Amino acid sequence: MEKIRRQERRIALTKILVDNPNQLFPLSHFSGLFMAAKSTVCEDVDAIRLAIEQFGLGKLETVSGAGGGIKYIPVKSAAKIEEILCGLSTKLASPDRIIPGGFIYMSDILFNVQLMSPIGEVFMTRFASAAPDYIMTVETKGIPLAYSTARAFNLPLITVRRDSRVTEGSAVSINYVTGSSRRIQTMSLPRRAIPSGARVLIIDDFMKAGGTARGMIELAEEVGAEVVGTGVLVATAEPREKLVKDYLALLILQTVDEHNKKTDIRPAVNS
Amino acid sequence: MEKIRRQERRIALTKILVDNPNQLFPLSHFSGLFMAAKSTVCEDVDAIRLAIEQFGLGKLETVSGAGGGIKYIPVKSAAKIEEILCGLSTKLASPDRIIPGGFIYMSDILFNVQLMSPIGEVFMTRFASAAPDYIMTVETKGIPLAYSTARAFNLPLITVRRDSRVTEGSAVSINYVTGSSRRIQTMSLPRRAIPSGARVLIIDDFMKAGGTARGMIELAEEVGAEVVGTGVLVATAEPREKLVKDYLALLILQTVDEHNKKTDIRPAVNS
Repeated sequence: MEKIRRQERRIALTKILVDNPNQLFPLSHFSGLFMAAKSTVCEDVDAIRLAIEQFGLGKLETVSGAGGGIKYIPVKSAAKIEEILCGLSTKLASPDRIIPGGFIYMSDILFNVQLMSPIGEVFMTRFASAAPDYIMTVETKGIPLAYSTARAFNLPLITVRRDSRVTEGSAVSINYVTGSSRRIQTMSLPRRAIPSGARVLIIDDFMKAGGTARGMIELAEEVGAEVVGTGVLVATAEPREKLVKDYLALLILQTVDEHNKKTDIRPAVNS
Repeated sequence: MEKIRRQERRIALTKILVDNPNQLFPLSHFSGLFMAAKSTVCEDVDAIRLAIEQFGLGKLETVSGAGGGIKYIPVKSAAKIEEILCGLSTKLASPDRIIPGGFIYMSDILFNVQLMSPIGEVFMTRFASAAPDYIMTVETKGIPLAYSTARAFNLPLITVRRDSRVTEGSAVSINYVTGSSRRIQTMSLPRRAIPSGARVLIIDDFMKAGGTARGMIELAEEVGAEVVGTGVLVATAEPREKLVKDYLALLILQTVDEHNKKTDIRPAVNS
């Protein structure tokens, strides 16, 4: 192969790093790929760092020593997070989303890649210091959100099922009481899904009383994992007392006024 | 803001394009962002195109005329697709994945972002000419795969539910017979999820007799959509006759030999 020009190398390097957030690449990986000296790759990395940080597109972290390397971290600034959450609030507050019963229709938003990818990066930014090993959610509507969070963290995603399937081998199940409707439901997890001692971050789309999140916490503890955080996209303002003590909600749903077709939803103050 | 140097502009431009596959950006978007002439942005785009194509990382497409612009398409070469599918076959053939009953444990792989992102790009490459408007799947295990496909295409994802929920408003339901176990099951879709006449690509993780895919096709037709393709990650070799006529399987599961702990799974010949 002919000698690769600096600018092409930097463009390709940017593409690979950005496509694999939070994945550590040894410098030797790139010096091999581009047939370039490590010092050259270092210069490339410095140029990329400068450009990415200048445009608020995240940051590059260099890990030194043996086993070190370089990784791209899709952190978002406080201003960018506010912009994302305000935009999402506006979408969710649209009057035609109100469903009889005082619910709001969210499925199209929860399965929209362009909207959920940035939300995954918001959760990554907020929970980076919790240093999770796994992201956990429960089927079905929280999956894209949790998957986007797992992508931003470069971590495996564990999806709790509402029933246990024969095709997943032995499973651990718990019964839990949903906080709002007081029904008894079952959740299960393949026994092999999480090793004992793993640090788990729980991500879900919606929290009313917190029964589902509480069930996931109990299930995680049942298999010997440690829950290091709980994040939800939307939490209702009422009931104020949730079954889960510590959680981070990005948006707060204050009220849905079916009669006047008005939804009051807004970014949480400390989101 | 000070004048932005060429190399920083190109790195940021690469990052934005790669982060938003199949999204059309007008050149004016970037000339505004970088305070640069359109001709300058054009030169940047040419340089990025060259680098991305040289390293087999996809392609850049320029759409000319009013409403035109530039987009990044994460197409994969035949060689790259083969490499991805061979790697996945090897993982799935691991003896410790065999579950009593002759099933194989796939959940960890199906929820693994690093593995499913490229598979989404493989489906995008294969189905690009079908020009879908929506990606459709059914809960639960196919969601990350379908979500990755939707991301590669820049299309909305529709997830069919096994029951209908009050929080999604009015829904269309069908009963269908699962092909392998001959049980009657229900599938439903919020009525507002797909507009009539939409072109739908169905994506799922596993096909045995094809009953689930057949159910999704019927449901899509029930709401007036047109199914333009069906893609599954794994199809079993037996039964040879599926309930769905045209489908694309990436991997073929020939046999699972529980006694000798051997799984024969391989890339499909025309995948």
